[in-house]
Amino acid sequence: MEASAEPEQVAAEGETGRHRRDAEVEFARIVAFSDGVFAIAITLLVLPLDIPKHTQDLAAAVWELDDDIFAYVVSFAVIGKYWLSHHRFYGTLERFDNTLMGLNLFYLAWVVLVPFTSEMLGRFSEDSTSTVAYAAVMAAASGTFVIQIAYAYRRGLMKPEAREAQQRFAGPANLLYTAIFLLSVPVAFASTWVAQGMWLAVFLVGRRAVNWIVERSEPPREEA
Amino acid sequence: MEASAEPEQVAAEGETGRHRRDAEVEFARIVAFSDGVFAIAITLLVLPLDIPKHTQDLAAAVWELDDDIFAYVVSFAVIGKYWLSHHRFYGTLERFDNTLMGLNLFYLAWVVLVPFTSEMLGRFSEDSTSTVAYAAVMAAASGTFVIQIAYAYRRGLMKPEAREAQQRFAGPANLLYTAIFLLSVPVAFASTWVAQGMWLAVFLVGRRAVNWIVERSEPPREEA
Amino acid sequence: MEASAEPEQVAAEGETGRHRRDAEVEFARIVAFSDGVFAIAITLLVLPLDIPKHTQDLAAAVWELDDDIFAYVVSFAVIGKYWLSHHRFYGTLERFDNTLMGLNLFYLAWVVLVPFTSEMLGRFSEDSTSTVAYAAVMAAASGTFVIQIAYAYRRGLMKPEAREAQQRFAGPANLLYTAIFLLSVPVAFASTWVAQGMWLAVFLVGRRAVNWIVERSEPPREEA
Amino acid sequence: MEASAEPEQVAAEGETGRHRRDAEVEFARIVAFSDGVFAIAITLLVLPLDIPKHTQDLAAAVWELDDDIFAYVVSFAVIGKYWLSHHRFYGTLERFDNTLMGLNLFYLAWVVLVPFTSEMLGRFSEDSTSTVAYAAVMAAASGTFVIQIAYAYRRGLMKPEAREAQQRFAGPANLLYTAIFLLSVPVAFASTWVAQGMWLAVFLVGRRAVNWIVERSEPPREEA
Repeated sequence: MEASAEPEQVAAEGETGRHRRDAEVEFARIVAFSDGVFAIAITLLVLPLDIPKHTQDLAAAVWELDDDIFAYVVSFAVIGKYWLSHHRFYGTLERFDNTLMGLNLFYLAWVVLVPFTSEMLGRFSEDSTSTVAYAAVMAAASGTFVIQIAYAYRRGLMKPEAREAQQRFAGPANLLYTAIFLLSVPVAFASTWVAQGMWLAVFLVGRRAVNWIVERSEPPREEA
Repeated sequence: MEASAEPEQVAAEGETGRHRRDAEVEFARIVAFSDGVFAIAITLLVLPLDIPKHTQDLAAAVWELDDDIFAYVVSFAVIGKYWLSHHRFYGTLERFDNTLMGLNLFYLAWVVLVPFTSEMLGRFSEDSTSTVAYAAVMAAASGTFVIQIAYAYRRGLMKPEAREAQQRFAGPANLLYTAIFLLSVPVAFASTWVAQGMWLAVFLVGRRAVNWIVERSEPPREEA
Repeated sequence: MEASAEPEQVAAEGETGRHRRDAEVEFARIVAFSDGVFAIAITLLVLPLDIPKHTQDLAAAVWELDDDIFAYVVSFAVIGKYWLSHHRFYGTLERFDNTLMGLNLFYLAWVVLVPFTSEMLGRFSEDSTSTVAYAAVMAAASGTFVIQIAYAYRRGLMKPEAREAQQRFAGPANLLYTAIFLLSVPVAFASTWVAQGMWLAVFLVGRRAVNWIVERSEPPREEA
Repeated sequence: MEASAEPEQVAAEGETGRHRRDAEVEFARIVAFSDGVFAIAITLLVLPLDIPKHTQDLAAAVWELDDDIFAYVVSFAVIGKYWLSHHRFYGTLERFDNTLMGLNLFYLAWVVLVPFTSEMLGRFSEDSTSTVAYAAVMAAASGTFVIQIAYAYRRGLMKPEAREAQQRFAGPANLLYTAIFLLSVPVAFASTWVAQGMWLAVFLVGRRAVNWIVERSEPPREEA
C-alpha cells in the first residue's frame, strides 16, 4: 500500500495537495520565488529614470522626467499593492499543489510585464496606446489572481478559518479591480486622464468599498 | 575520535553529505540562491521589450514587438517549468553535499543564459542561428539537470520514499527533454518552425508521455 | 464567537497586528521582500560603471570613472547602512500589521530611487542639482524610516525589552539623519563639497553622537 | 538589572554577538541578503552578451562574442566559487555581530563589482588594463573574505567543532587566493595570458594544494 502510493506522491503530488507543515522549505520556496520576482520587478521600475549622458542643463532634464516619475509612483504603488495581496492570500493557505504553482507563475508573468508598460506610460504619456497597454496588463494580473483565489477556494487549500473571509472579501475585490481595469481600456481611447482616474479611484477606495458592500448585502451563513 | 573527525567534517563535508535537518539554514540557502537566480533570469526577460525613444507611431511599434513578445512567452514558460522541476527535485532531497552544489551552479549557468538567447530569438526570429542557440542552451540546461538527478540518486541524497519515483519519472522525462532539444538543433537549420514545434510538443505532452510509457513498460520492483 | 471573528481576522488583520510567532512565513516574507529590494538596488549601483564600446585608451577611460566610482562607494555604504538599520529595527519587532507593511513599501520606494540619484551624482558631479536630488531622496528615506519606527513604537509592535532602547536611540538617530540630509539641500546650492561633507560626518559619527547625547541627557525612566 | 541591560542589548548588540538560535530571522536575513546580492551579480553577467540591433550576419556576430562568453564562464565560476565559500563559512558560524555584518557588506561591495570588471575583460580582452582591474577586484574580494574569517575566528563566533578546521584550511586557502590575484596584477602588465593562467591554476588546484600542505606541515594540536 505504502509502496504503491510512493510514485504517485511525487509524480502527481499536484493532484492531492501538500500541507505547508509537511513541506516547509517547499512552501517557503514558492513565496520566496514570488517575492524575488516582485522585488526585482519593483526595482527595475527605476531604470527608465535616465538622464541623457551629455545633458547641458541637468535641472531641466530632471524636470522633464515628470511623466516618468509619475509612472514610477503609480507602478510602485501597483506592484506594492499586488505584493500585499499576494502576501495576504498566501498567508491564508495551508496547502498547495502543482496547479496552484502553475497559476502563480501565470500570474507572475503579468507582474513582470509591469516595468515594460510602466516605461511606456512614462515615455509616451500623451499616447492612448500606453494607457491601454498598461490597463490591459493590470487587468490580466488581477484576473489571474482571482483565478488563483478561486482555485484555492474550490480545492480547499485554505485554512478553514480564513476560507469564508477570503471568498467574501478578496474574491470580489480582485474581481472589481479586473473589471475596472478592463473597463478603462476602451475609456483610454477617449481620454487617458479619465482612465487613469479610474485606476486611482479603485486604488484608493476599491477594497474598502467592496468590504462595505459585502458586509451589508450578504450576511455570513455560519452565524452562531 | 570526535576531535579528529572535526577538520574533515568542514574541509570535506562534500564527501559524506549533510542532512537538511542538521543544516536547515545551509540547505535553505541553496534553494534561496537558486530561486534568486531563477527569479532574476525570469524578470530580465522583460528587458528586450523596448520601444525606441523617438517612436512616432506607438501602436505600430508595439505590434512590431510581436516576435519579442512570443520569445517572452516561450522563455517565461521555459524558465517557469525549469523552476517547477527544480522545486520538485529539491523537495525530494534530504541530504546535500558540495558536489551537488557545484552541479547546481553548473546548471544555473545555463539558466542565466536564457535571457540572452531569448532576446536573440525575439530580435532575429527569421534567422536559424537564434533557434539553434536557444535549443543548445535548453539542451544543456536539461542535460545538466539530469546529471544532478542522477548524482543525487546514486549518492543516496533523496528521501527513501521519493527515490524510486524520481528515478523512474523525473530522470527519463528530463532525458527526453535533453534529447528533443538536441535533436531540434539540426532541425532548426532546415526549418525553425519545425524545431520550435518540437519544443512546444515536449512542453505540452512531454512529462505526461514519459509517465505513461514508464508506468506501462516497467513494473515497479518493490511491490508488496 | 469564533465564527464571527473570522472575517475580521483576515479582512482587517492590519487593525490588530499579528505575532510573528503565529505567522512565521508571513513575517519572513516582509523581510525577504525588503532584502530582495535592498539587494537588487545595491547591485544595480554597478550599472553606471560603464566603458564606451569603442574606447581607444582603456586605462584613461577607467580613470575617468573616478566620480562614478566615488558615487558607487557612497551609495553602497548608504544602502548598506539603511539595510543594517532595517535589519536591526525588524529584529526588535514581535508583531506586524498592514499599516506597517504599507509604511515599509513607502520607505522602500525611496531606497529604489538611490541607484538613479547615484548615477546622476556620478555623472554630473559638478552640478549642484545631482547633490540636491541625492540629499532629497536620502532625507525622504530616513524620514519614512523614522515614521516606521514611531508607528511600531506607538502601536506596541516591538518586543518589550527592545522598546525603550529603540525609542531612545534609533528614533533620534534617524531623525538626525533626516535633519542633516534636509539641511544639506540648501547647502548644496552653495557648495556641493560642504553638503557631501555633512553626509560623511553623519555617516561616520552620527549614531555614536546620538547615543552619547541620549545617554547623558536623559536618564532612563525604568531604573530598578 | 534586566532593565539596565536592555538599551545596551539593542544599541550595542554588536559588542557581544547574538546566537543564531536566538535570532533565527535575523541570522537568516544576513545570508538571504548576501544570497540576493550573489544571485543578482551572477545573473547580471549575462547583460554584456549583446548582439547589435541591426546585425546582418547573426552567426558571425555570435562568434564575435567569444571573449565575452569566456569572461562569462570565468566570472560565473568565480562568483559561484565565492558563493560556495560564503555558504561554507556562514555554515560554521553560530553567532554574529554588527562588525561581522559590516565586514560582510564590505566584502559584498567587491562582489558587486565583478559584473563591471567582467564586462571589461570580455570587451577589451587584448588590453592589460582589464586583466589588471579584474585581478584587483578579485584580490580585494578574497582579502576582505579572509578578514571576515579571521574576525569570526578571533571573536569566537564559530561553532567550536568547526573552529580549528576553518582556521587551518579556509584561512590559508583564501590568503593564497588573495596573494595569487595580487601577484597577477604586475604579471598582467607583461602578459595577460600568464596572469589568467594563474587564476585558472588557483581555481583548479588552490584549495586542494592548501589542504595538502596544511595537513602535512602542521599537526593538529587538539589530538585525543
